[in-house]
Amino acid sequence: THFFDGKKHVIVTSSKVKEVPELLADYVEDHFVMETDIQLASRDYRSEKRGIKSLGIGPGKTAIIAGPCSVESYEQLDTVAQFLIKSGVKLLRGGCFKPRTSPYTFQGLGLEGLELLAQMREKYGLKIVTEVKDSSHIADVIAHADVVQIGAKAMYDHSILRACGQSNKPVLLKRGFGTTLQEFVQAAEFILSQGNSEVMLCERGIRTFENKTRFTLDLTGVAFLKHHTNLPVIVDPSHAIGYRYGVPDLTRAAMAMGVEGLLLETHPKPEQALSDAAQQLSLEEFEKLHQSLHPVATAVGQQII
Amino acid sequence: THFFDGKKHVIVTSSKVKEVPELLADYVEDHFVMETDIQLASRDYRSEKRGIKSLGIGPGKTAIIAGPCSVESYEQLDTVAQFLIKSGVKLLRGGCFKPRTSPYTFQGLGLEGLELLAQMREKYGLKIVTEVKDSSHIADVIAHADVVQIGAKAMYDHSILRACGQSNKPVLLKRGFGTTLQEFVQAAEFILSQGNSEVMLCERGIRTFENKTRFTLDLTGVAFLKHHTNLPVIVDPSHAIGYRYGVPDLTRAAMAMGVEGLLLETHPKPEQALSDAAQQLSLEEFEKLHQSLHPVATAVGQQII
Amino acid sequence: THFFDGKKHVIVTSSKVKEVPELLADYVEDHFVMETDIQLASRDYRSEKRGIKSLGIGPGKTAIIAGPCSVESYEQLDTVAQFLIKSGVKLLRGGCFKPRTSPYTFQGLGLEGLELLAQMREKYGLKIVTEVKDSSHIADVIAHADVVQIGAKAMYDHSILRACGQSNKPVLLKRGFGTTLQEFVQAAEFILSQGNSEVMLCERGIRTFENKTRFTLDLTGVAFLKHHTNLPVIVDPSHAIGYRYGVPDLTRAAMAMGVEGLLLETHPKPEQALSDAAQQLSLEEFEKLHQSLHPVATAVGQQII
Amino acid sequence: THFFDGKKHVIVTSSKVKEVPELLADYVEDHFVMETDIQLASRDYRSEKRGIKSLGIGPGKTAIIAGPCSVESYEQLDTVAQFLIKSGVKLLRGGCFKPRTSPYTFQGLGLEGLELLAQMREKYGLKIVTEVKDSSHIADVIAHADVVQIGAKAMYDHSILRACGQSNKPVLLKRGFGTTLQEFVQAAEFILSQGNSEVMLCERGIRTFENKTRFTLDLTGVAFLKHHTNLPVIVDPSHAIGYRYGVPDLTRAAMAMGVEGLLLETHPKPEQALSDAAQQLSLEEFEKLHQSLHPVATAVGQQII
Repeated sequence: THFFDGKKHVIVTSSKVKEVPELLADYVEDHFVMETDIQLASRDYRSEKRGIKSLGIGPGKTAIIAGPCSVESYEQLDTVAQFLIKSGVKLLRGGCFKPRTSPYTFQGLGLEGLELLAQMREKYGLKIVTEVKDSSHIADVIAHADVVQIGAKAMYDHSILRACGQSNKPVLLKRGFGTTLQEFVQAAEFILSQGNSEVMLCERGIRTFENKTRFTLDLTGVAFLKHHTNLPVIVDPSHAIGYRYGVPDLTRAAMAMGVEGLLLETHPKPEQALSDAAQQLSLEEFEKLHQSLHPVATAVGQQII
Repeated sequence: THFFDGKKHVIVTSSKVKEVPELLADYVEDHFVMETDIQLASRDYRSEKRGIKSLGIGPGKTAIIAGPCSVESYEQLDTVAQFLIKSGVKLLRGGCFKPRTSPYTFQGLGLEGLELLAQMREKYGLKIVTEVKDSSHIADVIAHADVVQIGAKAMYDHSILRACGQSNKPVLLKRGFGTTLQEFVQAAEFILSQGNSEVMLCERGIRTFENKTRFTLDLTGVAFLKHHTNLPVIVDPSHAIGYRYGVPDLTRAAMAMGVEGLLLETHPKPEQALSDAAQQLSLEEFEKLHQSLHPVATAVGQQII
Repeated sequence: THFFDGKKHVIVTSSKVKEVPELLADYVEDHFVMETDIQLASRDYRSEKRGIKSLGIGPGKTAIIAGPCSVESYEQLDTVAQFLIKSGVKLLRGGCFKPRTSPYTFQGLGLEGLELLAQMREKYGLKIVTEVKDSSHIADVIAHADVVQIGAKAMYDHSILRACGQSNKPVLLKRGFGTTLQEFVQAAEFILSQGNSEVMLCERGIRTFENKTRFTLDLTGVAFLKHHTNLPVIVDPSHAIGYRYGVPDLTRAAMAMGVEGLLLETHPKPEQALSDAAQQLSLEEFEKLHQSLHPVATAVGQQII
Repeated sequence: THFFDGKKHVIVTSSKVKEVPELLADYVEDHFVMETDIQLASRDYRSEKRGIKSLGIGPGKTAIIAGPCSVESYEQLDTVAQFLIKSGVKLLRGGCFKPRTSPYTFQGLGLEGLELLAQMREKYGLKIVTEVKDSSHIADVIAHADVVQIGAKAMYDHSILRACGQSNKPVLLKRGFGTTLQEFVQAAEFILSQGNSEVMLCERGIRTFENKTRFTLDLTGVAFLKHHTNLPVIVDPSHAIGYRYGVPDLTRAAMAMGVEGLLLETHPKPEQALSDAAQQLSLEEFEKLHQSLHPVATAVGQQII
C-alpha cells in the first residue's frame, strides 16, 4: 500500500520484504525493516505518540467520552448533553446501530439517532462519537460523527476499515472480545496505511473463562499497547465488567495508567435503558466518579479534558 | 419479526414475552414459550433436524466440501475440480474475499474468483461454496454461489445476515473464534427469522490459552449443537489446528460424531499456496484421508456424499 | 538430573545447555540437543511410542478404563466390577480422595476406598486406577493402585511427581484445565527424569470462554501430543463436557483418533451418585457405548482392550 | 464443618441445606441461608471487611510486600532487606520452594532459604511472606513465615488448605491462573471453615488467549472480589504481565482500586536472577515506583503501609 504522510510518499510492504528492491533504491529516502506486520503503529517507525488534533487528545491528556449506550429519544439525549456540558465533558457518545446478538431485541434508532446526535453538536458544541456496526451505514456515520467508533464485532470488516482510512475523521477502534493485541493493531494498520493517521485503540474487555463478570478488562494489554505502539489508548470499563458496581474502580485504575481517554456509559434512568441497563451509571453516579478522577489524574501527571 | 414458513405466518418475539397478547389471541393457532433467544433453531420449536434439500444434506449423510483456501487461478481451480469429480466429491469450496488480519498480505481475487468458481460449476456440475467477508460484496456472492459461507469474522454482521435471510441460498455460518455457542445460534436465528430455513452451523476452532495449535476445535460444542438445535452441523478441522499433521485425525474424529458435513482445504501445491500454506492438504493427502473416512462413516451409520 | 534407562546412565540438563562440557566429553556415548524442555517425552529423543507393559497398553491398542467417579460402598463397587468383567473391561477406576472445590461437599472415602478397590482386584483380577489428590496420601495410593492417576489439580505438585518418578507403578497424568500442552508434557518430564518411563498423558478438557459445556475437550491438543511426544495418550470425555448426553459422541471421536485409552465414568445409579451425577453413564448406557466403539476401532485399525 | 469464631460455635453446611433441622432448632442462635458455597467469605455472612491484625492490614490501608522472586543467598537477601527498611516497607517476600514447570531449572533453596528469611526478621524486624508449593514442606513454612503464601499451582491442595486453616498464621492465597473467582473464594472457605479467619485473596493474572503478555491481570475480578467478599484483596502485577515495562502502570492501576496490598518483585541485579529475570524490578526501579504510589493512594483515600 501507498499513501501520503504530509508531503512524503510512504510505501508499506509485507514484513516479509526485508530489503529495498534494487529498482527502487535510487528513489527511497528512508526505510524501516519491521519484524512483524505491526509497522506504522510501531514505535520503531514513529517513536512519539500520535494524537487527535481536532479533539486535543494526546500525551498527558485524558479525554472523557460519555453518554448513553443507545440513543433513545431527543429528551433522553438532551438531558445527558446538558449534564455533560455542566460537567465540562466535551465528547458525547451514543449508539444508533446496535450490534445486538439476538434478533429479537431493540436494534437502535439508525439514521434518526445520528440526526439527534448532530442536533446536540449544534445546540451544545459537543463532539459526537458514534458507532458503525456494519458497512451498510458507514457513509452515514462518517457524515454525521466527529469520531467514528468501530465496534468490537465490526473491527475485522475491511470495507469499514478502508472507508475510515480514506476519510478524514478520527477513528476510535474497539478491540474485539476474541481479538489478540497483534490483530487489534493490524486492524489499525488497515486504516493508517490508507492515509488516515488519527486512530485510537480502545480496550473494552476480552472473553475469558471467567463468567462472574461479563468480560475481563485487559489492562495488561493496555500496558503492552502503551509501550509498543504510538497510538492513543482509550479504555471502556462499562462494557468490560457489565455491572455498575465495578465501573468506578476500573475507571480509576485506567486513569492511573495514564490512558488518553475513557469511554463511560451514563443514562438519565439506567433501569429503563433499552440496552445494557445493568452497567450504565446514572448521571449522579457518573458525576461522582468524574469528580474522583481529577486527583488520580493529578497523581499521575495527566490532565482531564 | 414475521415470516412465512410454508403457508403459515410465523411471528417471533423476544423470549421475554411469555404469553400471547390478548388482542392476538383469536388469531394465533399455536405458540411456543422459549427460555432463551434460541427459538427457531431449538429442538423445542422443531424437534426433527433440518436439512438442505438442494444438496442432499441432512440426518444420516455427511457431505464433503473440499477445495483450496483461496481461489488463485483457473489452472489451480481446474486441477482441484477434476480431482474432486474423480473422488466423488460434489461440493467445491474456495475463497475469493480473504479476511486477512494484515493489510500487507494477499487479499483474494474478488469478483474474478467468483467467476472462476462459476465456470467450475458449469464445466463439472460441482456445487460452489464461497465466503462473504463483508457486506460490500454480499450481493455478488449470493448471485454466484450455491452455498453462501459467512466467515468467522463476519458472523455478527447484520447486513450480511439479513441479506442471507432474504435470499433463497443455503447458508454455511461459521462460528467466530471468540463466539459463544449461544451467540452462534443467535446469528443463525437472524437468518431463520427472515424466512430462510437452510442454515448450517460450522465449528472451526475457538481461541483458547493454548497456542501450540492455532485454535482449539470445539467438538464438545458440536455435541451441544447436535443435541440442542435442529440445524445441520459442519466441522472445519483445517483452520482449527492450523497444521497439516493433525487434520486427518481431527477429520475422522468429527466423522465419528456423525456430523452433517466436513470442510477440508486441499491445494495442488500446498507449499506454494497464497494463504494458509501450513494447513492445506495436497490432493494425494486429501484422497488418502477421504478414503479413510468411509469405514468410520459406516461404523457410525453415516453415508458420505 | 540423572537416572538409569535399562543399563545406560542418562543425564538430562536444561535445554539451555547446547553442547557437551569438555570435561565430560570422553564419557558421553550419545547426546541430543533439544530446542525446549520437552526432552525425554520428545520424538527427537525416542521416536517410537512408549507403552505400559503390565497393562498391554501401546500403539494399536485402546484400553477402556471404566468405573464410578467416587468409590461409595462395597455394593456399588462390586456391581460395577461384575459388570465390567462381563463386558471384557480390565481396568477399574474409582476415586477415593476427591478434589472438590467446595469444602461443604462429599470428600471421598479415603483409605477405606483404596481397600475396597484392592478387594476388587483380588476378587475379579481387575487392574485398579485411582487418583492421588495431594501428597499426604501418595504413599497409600502407590501401595494400593496398579496405575496412579495424578489429578488435574495436582499435576504441578512436585512431591507427587517425584514420588511417582521413583515408584515402579505406571502413571496416568491428567492435564490441568488451565495447563498448556508444554507444561503438561513438562510435568511428565519430572516423572520420566526420575527413571519411571511409564507415563500416560490424559486430556480431560480445558477451561475456555464457553460455558454451555463444563470444559472444552482439546482434541486438537491430542493431535499435537500424538504427533510430538512418544507417550500414550488417554482421553476422558466425561469430565470434559460434564453432561451425559455428549459422552458417547465424544468418546467415539477420541476412538477415531486412535488414542491409547479412554477413561469413562459409569455408575449403577448415576442419579444417586455422590459426585458428578450429571455426567456418569448408567451401566446400560456404558455398555451400549462400549459396543459402538468396536466398529470405530476397526475402522481406524485399533484393537480395544 | 464446625469451628469457633471468638467464643461462638459456627457450623457450616452445604448451601443445599436451606433450613435449620428441627432437632437443632433450639440450639441455633442465628443462621444464614446462602445461595452458593461462598459462605463465610460472603458479605451476606459478615458485611464488614476482615483484616490481618498482626500486619495492620485492613480497609483504608495498602500494604507493600516486596522482595526477590527466589531467595538466592544471604548477600542478595540482606541487600534487599536493608533497602526495604530504608524505604519504609515492612513485609519481605522471597520464594524458597519454586514451583517451576520444568524439572531442568533452578528449584529453590528450600529449608536453607527459610532460615535466611528468618534471619532477616531477627536482624531488621521485617515480617516474612513465603510460599508453600506442596504439602511436604507446609509445616516448615508455617513455622518460619509470618504470612504463609499459597502458590497459584497449590491452591487446590486440601492438605495445605487444611494445615493453614488449623494454624494461626495469616494466609496469602494466590488465585490459580485457570481458576474461576468462585473456585478461588471456595479455596478460602476451606481455610476459614477450619477457624483461621485471616485469609487474603491475591490476584496474579489468569491465562487467556492473549500471549503477547504472560498472563492477563484480572482487575475486573478484583472489583468482583472487593464487592462480594469480606476478605482483603492483594494484587501481584509482576507475575501477571511477566515483563518489567508494564509493572509500574499496573501497580498504580491496582493502587487506584484501593486494594489492601501489592506484591512486588525486586532484585538487586534482576538480569542475574535465577528465576523470573524478565519481570523483576531493580531496587532503583522499585523505589521510583514506590514513591509514585503515594499520590495515587492519597487520591483514593488509602494509606500505604
